[in-house]
This record gives sequence, C-alpha cells and structure tokens, in this order.
Amino acid sequence: MLKLNCDLGESFGAWSMGLDADIMPLIDQANIACGMHASDPDTLLRTVRLAQQHGVEIGAHPGYPDKQGFGRRPMGLSADQVYATVLYQIAAIAGVAQAQGAQVGYVKPHGALYHAMMNDEPTRRAIYQAVSDYPTPLALVMLANPNRTHFIDEVASGDYPGLTLRFEAFADRAYADNGQLLARDQPGAVHQHLDAIVAQAKTIAEQQQVTTATGNTIALAADTLCVHGDNQAALAAVKAIRHMLQGPS
Amino acid sequence: MLKLNCDLGESFGAWSMGLDADIMPLIDQANIACGMHASDPDTLLRTVRLAQQHGVEIGAHPGYPDKQGFGRRPMGLSADQVYATVLYQIAAIAGVAQAQGAQVGYVKPHGALYHAMMNDEPTRRAIYQAVSDYPTPLALVMLANPNRTHFIDEVASGDYPGLTLRFEAFADRAYADNGQLLARDQPGAVHQHLDAIVAQAKTIAEQQQVTTATGNTIALAADTLCVHGDNQAALAAVKAIRHMLQGPS
Amino acid sequence: MLKLNCDLGESFGAWSMGLDADIMPLIDQANIACGMHASDPDTLLRTVRLAQQHGVEIGAHPGYPDKQGFGRRPMGLSADQVYATVLYQIAAIAGVAQAQGAQVGYVKPHGALYHAMMNDEPTRRAIYQAVSDYPTPLALVMLANPNRTHFIDEVASGDYPGLTLRFEAFADRAYADNGQLLARDQPGAVHQHLDAIVAQAKTIAEQQQVTTATGNTIALAADTLCVHGDNQAALAAVKAIRHMLQGPS
Amino acid sequence: MLKLNCDLGESFGAWSMGLDADIMPLIDQANIACGMHASDPDTLLRTVRLAQQHGVEIGAHPGYPDKQGFGRRPMGLSADQVYATVLYQIAAIAGVAQAQGAQVGYVKPHGALYHAMMNDEPTRRAIYQAVSDYPTPLALVMLANPNRTHFIDEVASGDYPGLTLRFEAFADRAYADNGQLLARDQPGAVHQHLDAIVAQAKTIAEQQQVTTATGNTIALAADTLCVHGDNQAALAAVKAIRHMLQGPS
Repeated sequence: MLKLNCDLGESFGAWSMGLDADIMPLIDQANIACGMHASDPDTLLRTVRLAQQHGVEIGAHPGYPDKQGFGRRPMGLSADQVYATVLYQIAAIAGVAQAQGAQVGYVKPHGALYHAMMNDEPTRRAIYQAVSDYPTPLALVMLANPNRTHFIDEVASGDYPGLTLRFEAFADRAYADNGQLLARDQPGAVHQHLDAIVAQAKTIAEQQQVTTATGNTIALAADTLCVHGDNQAALAAVKAIRHMLQGPS
Repeated sequence: MLKLNCDLGESFGAWSMGLDADIMPLIDQANIACGMHASDPDTLLRTVRLAQQHGVEIGAHPGYPDKQGFGRRPMGLSADQVYATVLYQIAAIAGVAQAQGAQVGYVKPHGALYHAMMNDEPTRRAIYQAVSDYPTPLALVMLANPNRTHFIDEVASGDYPGLTLRFEAFADRAYADNGQLLARDQPGAVHQHLDAIVAQAKTIAEQQQVTTATGNTIALAADTLCVHGDNQAALAAVKAIRHMLQGPS
Repeated sequence: MLKLNCDLGESFGAWSMGLDADIMPLIDQANIACGMHASDPDTLLRTVRLAQQHGVEIGAHPGYPDKQGFGRRPMGLSADQVYATVLYQIAAIAGVAQAQGAQVGYVKPHGALYHAMMNDEPTRRAIYQAVSDYPTPLALVMLANPNRTHFIDEVASGDYPGLTLRFEAFADRAYADNGQLLARDQPGAVHQHLDAIVAQAKTIAEQQQVTTATGNTIALAADTLCVHGDNQAALAAVKAIRHMLQGPS
Repeated sequence: MLKLNCDLGESFGAWSMGLDADIMPLIDQANIACGMHASDPDTLLRTVRLAQQHGVEIGAHPGYPDKQGFGRRPMGLSADQVYATVLYQIAAIAGVAQAQGAQVGYVKPHGALYHAMMNDEPTRRAIYQAVSDYPTPLALVMLANPNRTHFIDEVASGDYPGLTLRFEAFADRAYADNGQLLARDQPGAVHQHLDAIVAQAKTIAEQQQVTTATGNTIALAADTLCVHGDNQAALAAVKAIRHMLQGPS
C-alpha cells in the first residue's frame, strides 16, 4: 500500500511549528528534522519518541545549516561539505533513536538540499555516499519523476552499498505532462480543494498514474506520498487520504 | 600505562584552533568537539579520520550550545536538556566515526558542562544517562579527585548499564592539599616550566601521587592525563611527557 | 496615564511567534527583539515598521545570544560581554529604525538578562553603561519594586549621562508583601481571570498600589504595565485593560 | 593618495583570525566584520576601538549570515532579505562606533555578498538602498572594473541619496585584458612575489593603470587598494606598499 510521509519535528526551542501530535497517528513515515535547518536536541528527542509511540517509521530529514532561512535558501556547499553535513545529521538522529530503542529507516533531504539533490549530480552523489556509508542500510527518498531510471542506474552501479531508493509523489501539487511538478508560482500549481487532493492520491495509489494540469494521464510510480501537517486544512487532507487508502471497512 | 588525552577538532569553519596534526601522533585519546561549542561537520569528519589514521582512541567531547562563548560560559540547561544535548553530540560523532570504520570509546564533557558535571548532581546524572543510553558501551571521563568514590558509587547503582568511569589528572595544574585543582586565578595555579610539568606527570604516572602547592604529597589515582595542543610550548610539554612515559629505550 | 508595553518581534525566520499585528494597535510601547535571543533582520525591520505605522514607541529588547533557549537561560557573560552585547543590539535596532524615519526611545532587557540586571550589580552597571553610551538619550525599563530607590541612586551618580529609568508592573502576576513578584511556580502566581487582571491594572494605574497575595495593599509606583500578546486570552486581557485605562467615553 | 583598505575584526569568540594589531597602523580604512559571517559584539567593539586609536577610517563589512561558511558560500537571499541584512549590520557597527565617539565612513560587503553585489542587480540595488537609507552619508566600495560607469550611472539616478561609490583594486591579483580579475583557480592569478605586488600597487597608484596577465597595459581607476592581514607575508607586502606610497622621505 502507498505510504504517507510528512515533515515533522521542525520546531526550534521556544518556536513551535506543525501539528506533530495530531499528524503522527495518521502517517507511516516521519521525516524528522535533525538540527541544522530546524530542531534542536530536545525537539529531536521528543519527536523520535512520538514516532516510536505511534509505530511510525523514523526518517532523517537533513537540511542546509541555515535556521534563519529554514534550509529553503540555495547554499553553495561543496560536495565534501554536503557529505559531511548529511552524514552528521543522519548519525545524530540515528544514534538518538537507537538510544531510545528505535531505528532510522530512511533519509529524505529537506528544502533547498532536496532540490539540489534532484538537480545537481555532485550534491546527489555526496548524499548517496553519506547514506551508503552509514553502517545500517538506509533508503533515500527522491522525487518520483521520469528521471527515476537514471537515479536507479546511478545507485545500481555498486558504488553505494546499503543504499536503496524510494520515490515520493504529491497529492496536492499539479503535475506537468513531462511528469515534473508545476512550479509553485504557476496558476493551479497547488490543489486547494480536498476532493482534488484525495482524487489525485487515489489515482497515484491505485493506478500509479496522475492526471496532469492539461488533463492528460501519465504514469507515476511512487512508493510514498508526501503530506503536510502545518495547519488544520492540511490535517483534514491527510485524514481524508488515510481514509481513502484504507478503503471501506 | 597512564594515557594522554587532549581536546582536538575545535576549529570552526574558516577559524583554525589547535595544532591537531602535530599533537595527534603523541596522544592516546582524542577528545573531539561535536559541533555545539566548536567544530562543524567538516571539521568533525576530518578530525575523526586523523585520529583513526594515528590509531588514537576517539572520544566524544560534547559542550554547551554556545559557540560564541566556546562552551566556557555557565548556561542554565535543565537536566532534560543536558541529556538530549549530550546524547545528540555522542550520536553525531559516533555515527560519523562508524561510517569511517572507527568507534567512539568514551565521552568527556567540555568546559562549563564539565564543570557542571563535577558540581551539579542533576547535570551529572543526565550525563550518566545519556552515556549509558547510547547503544555501545562508553566510558565517561571525570576529574580525578577525592570524590572519586562518590561518583563510582553513583554509577555502581546499576542505573547506568554500559557506563564506566575514567579519571583524569593534570600535569600542568597545581593541586591543593584537599586534592582539588587550584583555581586558575590563584598564583602558581598553572605550572609554567617544562621540568615541573614533566615531574608532576611522572609522579602521577609512577606513584599515583601528586605534590600539592604547599609541598605535601597526596594520593591521586588517574587513568589518563589531560594535555594541551594549543601552541608550541604545550606541544613541547606533551613530547617531553610522552618521552618520560616511554622511559629509556 | 499608565503606559502598556509588550514584547514583540520575537519571530525567527519561518517560525512565527506572537499576535503582533493584533496587539500593536493596543499598546504604547513595543519591546522589539534585536536578533540575539529571537528575531532576524527581516523580522526586526517588519516589526519596526509595524510599530511606526501605529505610532507605538519603539524599545530595544536585547537578550542573551541564545536562540535555542530564547534568552531565558542564565548565561555567564562577563560585564564587558554584557556591555558589548547590549550596545550592539541597541545600535542595530536604533539604526534600522532611523533608516525608516523612526526612533528608539528606550531599552528593556529580555528574560534571563532582565533577571540578571535586577539581581547582579556588574550586569546592571554594564547595561547602564551601554544605554548611556548610545548617542541618543534612552530610558531603561526595570521592574517596579521596593529597591527602586536604590537603582535611581545608582543612576543619579552622574556616571550614566543620558540614561533615565522607567519602572514596569504586571497586571497578571501576584505580588508578595515585600513588593516582589511571586515566583511563577508558586500557587496563584499568575492571575488566570480577566477580572482579576483588569482589577490589578486599575489599582496600579489609579492608585499606584497593588493588593498582594495575602490581601494587603502596598505601594507600587509604575510608569508602564507589561502585557502579553502570545495568544487570544492575552489579547483579550490587553483589550480590557486598554478599555479600563481610557475610561468611559 | 591611494588608500589602503583591509578586512579586520574577523575573529569570533575564542577563535582568532588576522594580525589586526599589526596591520591596523599600516592602513587607512578598516573593513570591520559586523557579526553575521564573522565577529561578535566583543570582537566588534575591540576592533572599532583599535581603528579609532590609530585614526583609521571605519567601514562596515557586512556579510551573509553564515559563520560556518565565513560568508563565502553563495546564499539565495531575496532582495528584501539583502536590504534588511545589510542595513542591520551597518546599524550595529555604526551605533557601536558612535557610542565610542567614532563614525563609520563606508560599507564594503564581504565574500559571496560582494560577489553577488557585482553580478546581480537586485542584490546590488538592495545594498544601494540599505546604504542610502542609513541616516548618515556613507560610501559603498565596489570592485574597480570596466563596468564602473554602469554602477556610477545606477547611483546617479537620484534614487539613492547620501550614497557615493568608491572603487578598489588589488595589488596581488592578476588582471585580464578586459579589466576583470583572473579567477583564483587560474595559473598566475595571485602574485606571490613581493616585488610584483609592490610594482602593481605602484602602477595603480601613480598611473591609474595595471599590466594585465598577457602583458598589456590597461586603465584602472581606483580609490583604494585592498590589502590583507592574514599572515606575515601579507603583512610584509602591506609594509612595502605603504613605504612605496609614502615615497622617499
């Protein structure tokens, strides 16, 4: 069954973000911030325990070291810096989780680092290497798209033992005919209506397809669906998607 | 044989600190900063690899989250915050080391956190818990002093499985008759002459004793000697101590 | 008339805090965070402009350099560090305000720095010096209490030209018979009912007195009342206090 | 006479950088870090006082908020963020200087922000605006190059009252025939010999010309020469340039 993943643990000190306690019971995979773009040791520990309590798979959600920009600003890190930065964050959350009797199962980069992974090969290979070098096997979450095969080939080279790939899709974002997400600043790029969101989730889950902004149907093979927990509307969407996925009882 | 430990990996970005490459071949145990009071993922990785290359035991050197103050300023963290902060830092360096095929063997808190560990029971117990909860067994380095038995008893309670204690002494600091270090602002608190430093190291290493500032001889059981690698004079002292410890060839 | 002051501009990057837009029209003085315990240049600029738009006096609200702890954790800064840290923050907000055609009128330290100012003379004198050294005359806000005269005497010494003192009281905090605030962890330390809050504000405003937790009436000379804008209940209290102060129309 | 400017005050907490005390007596203009890419309130204050003591003009040296990367990494700030970030840093140092009886005379952006200023118009205009909005008139230092007229025209538009431009050249960097600096990774991009450095400084100072890497002579109108104070070799070069500029006594 299609999994649901969500960014969580993005509070920082006295600043709260996200409806973590509400969203955690509804999802399968928690992408937990690791202290660079968001979070701190207390928030990280609390979020790991919350995931553990709800049996949710724990994912490392590493980002650029830029709290002020929330890891959303492009930042010129060298490949060596990306390797060290991602490895450090995986290590931190994985060790904290192990000390609580839990495990990290995967890695999903955040924000501008995620974007650089999808578009810049040195950054992507540095991330592959960091995930692969970590002593326990981990999956890496990338954007489901037509280049999927290209990434699978990169990893199948044998250079990255222990690394597997997962691909994620979005229920609330419009797709172009070429299988890429429409840029956020384009009209209709983000679905506003619950029905449209649930319908897209259903098509992805049941048919491994998506209807594009122009009305065409294209293939979209996804392992997991990225959902949001920022506000009540997002929460309602996740509830509806979860209900749809489980089907009639 | 008495071991030598030294704080290393305390550079940060473009700012360099310590003669790490010179001191590493001379010591047994490297207390490597973990990114809170000093260091960053690149520096951490580089220092772990340097220790590995010289066969030096790697220690986590966690500090308060205060780079501007280099972790030397007292900071009012709750016990829960100390636990999360220390565990996070252990996890980060231990995972980075494992990914390079190395292991962390012990934990030595830094600066004001070390001081709080020695003097504040909630802080100390939070550190015990963090070290104990980390999945692989780790030693904790504390200051060799007359309260040694008290700390050993705290740990022998069975509450902290996997945790063992090590005690460290100083060759360049004067001791009071009660076995405590003289405060740094007191006259004669820091030995300036190489001969005095080596002589104190020798007495600690061979007799488990130290001559106090008033000329008395007291017992001082230490597992490791803390040395410094900040400048050429410190480096010369470490070379002389290393030569003394190895004895005539 | 008794003024109302409130801490504002305490968001940081993507993290939002406080109902700034709602509270600003209701208050007289905005204590605006300066980028150390909270805020960033964008937030600071936006908040200065919001205050300016509503004709609210702008105050610098400097804190310890500890975003993770929101400036609430005691931190061992030397007096020289306090001086430099406070002066830097005053300068930053005052210059930003001037560039928008506005002025900073006063300084109110935040959190643990405020507490240290009230209780530690070297910290307090370093703050006096920083406020006094800033080229335009500024007031410093302190806690209205029986030591008021002591602080006034310190400042009247002539050592701090340009510095004046203001004293603030609280409508939602219980006072002890000695004129100090009840510690937050004591029962009844924080008034929960709107009526109690407005009543205390009224007594302070009209009679320069307060009824203590034991039911006694003591003198409390205050220039300004500290109110909060964190949530809807706080906002309601400020509205009620503002209505009470303006009296029947 | 051609002025000499140098980046100073780039230490951070316990980390020292630059031979500030040695270089300050030799230069005319000190570009002082403002706390974002480097420095802290203590370092800033100490450096301002050092400049003041030697009668050196104080310049604000604002950078990206990235201490780990020392402001050298490109960072995707919006124009609004650049405006707020630069204004905040100018304000901080200018207010600190005024409180010591000194003045800031100019602004020179640092590292990747300087590079963005030279190459990205929205960034550059945001910097113009920040410098212009600061209440006292300030110069902005840019790279002397053939586009000089273009920048002068931008500023002459009348949109930036109070803003003037200064142009700086380098004595230790090779120039291409088009008047641009050779990229650092090209062979011969940085002059290693003292004689070559002094010779280039002399040609710039006396003839407003420079000999390019291919041996041609081109015009280069510069108001100030950027020198370095990082190490003894740099210091020797500055001494030699200063001696050359002052001529035979």
